[in-house]
Amino acid sequence: MTALITLTTDFGLRDPYVAEMKAVILGITRAVQLVDVTHEVAPHDVAEAALALEAAAPHFPAGTVHVAVVDPGVGTPRRGLAVAALGQVFIGPDNGLFTPFFRGPWAAFALASAEHRRPAVSPTFHGRDVFAPAAAHVAVGLAPERLGPSVGDPVRLPWPEPGDGPRGLTGSVLHVDRFGNLITSIRSSALAGVGPEVRVMVGGRSLRLVGTYGDLPPGGIGALVGSADRLEIAVREGSAAARLRARPGTRVVVSRVVSRRSRTAPTGSRRSS
Amino acid sequence: MTALITLTTDFGLRDPYVAEMKAVILGITRAVQLVDVTHEVAPHDVAEAALALEAAAPHFPAGTVHVAVVDPGVGTPRRGLAVAALGQVFIGPDNGLFTPFFRGPWAAFALASAEHRRPAVSPTFHGRDVFAPAAAHVAVGLAPERLGPSVGDPVRLPWPEPGDGPRGLTGSVLHVDRFGNLITSIRSSALAGVGPEVRVMVGGRSLRLVGTYGDLPPGGIGALVGSADRLEIAVREGSAAARLRARPGTRVVVSRVVSRRSRTAPTGSRRSS
Amino acid sequence: MTALITLTTDFGLRDPYVAEMKAVILGITRAVQLVDVTHEVAPHDVAEAALALEAAAPHFPAGTVHVAVVDPGVGTPRRGLAVAALGQVFIGPDNGLFTPFFRGPWAAFALASAEHRRPAVSPTFHGRDVFAPAAAHVAVGLAPERLGPSVGDPVRLPWPEPGDGPRGLTGSVLHVDRFGNLITSIRSSALAGVGPEVRVMVGGRSLRLVGTYGDLPPGGIGALVGSADRLEIAVREGSAAARLRARPGTRVVVSRVVSRRSRTAPTGSRRSS
Repeated sequence: MTALITLTTDFGLRDPYVAEMKAVILGITRAVQLVDVTHEVAPHDVAEAALALEAAAPHFPAGTVHVAVVDPGVGTPRRGLAVAALGQVFIGPDNGLFTPFFRGPWAAFALASAEHRRPAVSPTFHGRDVFAPAAAHVAVGLAPERLGPSVGDPVRLPWPEPGDGPRGLTGSVLHVDRFGNLITSIRSSALAGVGPEVRVMVGGRSLRLVGTYGDLPPGGIGALVGSADRLEIAVREGSAAARLRARPGTRVVVSRVVSRRSRTAPTGSRRSS
Repeated sequence: MTALITLTTDFGLRDPYVAEMKAVILGITRAVQLVDVTHEVAPHDVAEAALALEAAAPHFPAGTVHVAVVDPGVGTPRRGLAVAALGQVFIGPDNGLFTPFFRGPWAAFALASAEHRRPAVSPTFHGRDVFAPAAAHVAVGLAPERLGPSVGDPVRLPWPEPGDGPRGLTGSVLHVDRFGNLITSIRSSALAGVGPEVRVMVGGRSLRLVGTYGDLPPGGIGALVGSADRLEIAVREGSAAARLRARPGTRVVVSRVVSRRSRTAPTGSRRSS
Repeated sequence: MTALITLTTDFGLRDPYVAEMKAVILGITRAVQLVDVTHEVAPHDVAEAALALEAAAPHFPAGTVHVAVVDPGVGTPRRGLAVAALGQVFIGPDNGLFTPFFRGPWAAFALASAEHRRPAVSPTFHGRDVFAPAAAHVAVGLAPERLGPSVGDPVRLPWPEPGDGPRGLTGSVLHVDRFGNLITSIRSSALAGVGPEVRVMVGGRSLRLVGTYGDLPPGGIGALVGSADRLEIAVREGSAAARLRARPGTRVVVSRVVSRRSRTAPTGSRRSS
């Protein structure tokens, strides 16, 4: 059976670092599909990589091994981890990269086994010398617990979850994608809890919820549930980030629309545009 | 037999969208070679993607499946298509992406079959939930006509073809490549029809036709037939786009050089530099 | 056995050129792993590509075939080469790309065989029509000497090697990576020869040698032996290139630290910070 390994790093594609990791994997097994999740994570931005992994992993088959390397602490005593979750395995530094996968059942193991890393380990490139070989060994069948002792306290990032605010469900922009769409911390499940009809407030605008980009007029702005099951703000064939001057951290509030009955009351009803 | 699927999108490589498409394909078959044509198409630029596909597809073996997603109409009632042409299959939205492949024999089918898409289809990401699974099924042997009813009127872009103008064969710049080479709408076959010796007028310059970049002096500018069998304008180890301030749409005219006899006439002959 | 071919070019990822090369390879064999080393080499920068290959190749298994195309002389009479070295094969233009591999044992062959190139060769794209097919044939077992006559005088770049200067071992910055780390011409072996304790002078600063990025305080700058076994200058979670306004060519000097005895002498000892 062909194994499946994904790679997520902040290495970019100009330097040969990603190729060096693949070289090590292919030195261990060639019966593998290698898939790049992204290598364009902003340097050292662990949270951005965690978010990309959270979006991508659920679409991969059981048994997929994800190696992720955003690793400012490389060479220091920070641990390496193999995390079993979602029927998949995640391998990389213990710095919060795998935070999204500690919500369901999981088990984690420190990467301690000398026989599953390269004989000479560079203190500046564990991605190549520790994580890539561990991933290859797991992908071809090694049980993650063979890599080292169980870890019960992996590092977790403060993971942005929306909360109730005075004006409604309050979250934030997590990520701006290539199109300028704003991906927020508000999941579709939380959205459903607000009410049957909602308004989304962001950057001084009050937006309605639509089904897809094409439901907006050309250049129009709106909110929708995106492909990662999160609330997104989008401009049809344009950039919501540019329109709203929004970026990661920008606040987003979802509030319930007053009921139809009050809205159709003869007086006192006001709707924001 | 290992299947072969290419991917062409405007998703960029920073977001996990391309990986999500590959995840879906690999969930259906791992006996596949996945090749990225490009993911750096300008957002929503259907014509740019069509041009990349036109250049790349002829070099792929028969049976290759190309999935292409530049899809501003995602989630609206626009159709999805599987187009059989060149002994290959092209899968994506029916918005003109496959225009270059309607010149020879072709057959097209709407993507209607529920069993060849994912059970839950995001209204904003048919690339992942409709086109990727269709491509995987076709790549492993499903006949395209099994995907849905025949389509006789696929959307076609106005495809830039050169025409006769007062000064000669008149076309335009279609694409500026990474090197600053200008790829034009004038194919080598049309060029041959102009005459045995031609001049190429663009950006106020009159250029001679050479065989390859190295036929030009360092920094010199000229015209040549590029690797996609189209007339290109190039600067040796430099950028023709920068030199001429040219971009897609810039007009290019090819005219016949006056015959040797007139040129060698004692008077009245002028050659542009 | 699955073959292994890497690709190194200055084509970028926006144009379909890399995909066209892969198409040709996959038309010859699909039992192959294709790995991109980099396609973001600066246009026409042969030395940058050579450096990327030098860093990546040693991590690949024996038998790997590397095809490299930075080829400003394409279409001119410059030769194509297959170079056997390191138990691997390197294929591309004879313009210095393979300089790093002429230090150990090597053999080189001109790409002359008509049956191992495409029937029609574009004068502007030998990467696709000459080098890719040669690489595929070698990857599936063709002996490189079958490609053409032996070459004893391949083009070599002046390869930057450090030398002794008045203030110590003197080298230069070769490459600035995505993180702003400065990779220098000084190998760890040369460094060891300077003395047990050294200072690294660059951009007006005198830096100490540390083991890894994390040995520096946040934002601190230092020197270390990087993952390619070369002296690197790094800022922890920052850019050494920006901090020092350094770039390829910037001079780097390594000097011996005066012995502990003199340094602890009661007077006359000064240490740079």
